[in-house]
Amino acid sequence: MANVLKVSARSNPNLVAGAVAGSIRESGEAELQAVGAGAVNQAVKAAAIACAYLAPSEIRLAFEPSFLTVEMDGEQRTAIRLRSVILPK
Amino acid sequence: MANVLKVSARSNPNLVAGAVAGSIRESGEAELQAVGAGAVNQAVKAAAIACAYLAPSEIRLAFEPSFLTVEMDGEQRTAIRLRSVILPK
Repeated sequence: MANVLKVSARSNPNLVAGAVAGSIRESGEAELQAVGAGAVNQAVKAAAIACAYLAPSEIRLAFEPSFLTVEMDGEQRTAIRLRSVILPK
Repeated sequence: MANVLKVSARSNPNLVAGAVAGSIRESGEAELQAVGAGAVNQAVKAAAIACAYLAPSEIRLAFEPSFLTVEMDGEQRTAIRLRSVILPK
């Protein structure tokens, strides 16, 4: 199972992208999880930057988005998960 | 070239997802474009819902995120583009 990177509205997309790229290089997979518009925006930016980081290595990356329910501060919240997929060249 | 669906913070993700699914069924491709956190959030929700719409047809969908510069109200803005990819089964 992929390492899940939890992204917040205050996450630095470049740092998250570096973690995604590292996880892809190590294990071939990565997952981003975000709750709320600000966090989802940072997660998508990180995903786009990770694609750019990996392109010179001829790794073409895409993401499958899905919903999941998570508990935050004792409340049920709907999170977005972006699961990486390595595309055929 | 894929039909570009422009998503705003007020877009209904279910309707956008229907348009994505229709575009995939017709032409095999779709692109979502969004500017700003609220719009990106709705675009990702629409992408996740489109994946769920197409799953029963055994179409597995992912998205390649990228940045692009667009002009809005005479200003240069950074948009997020989500380009569909149909994954092998």
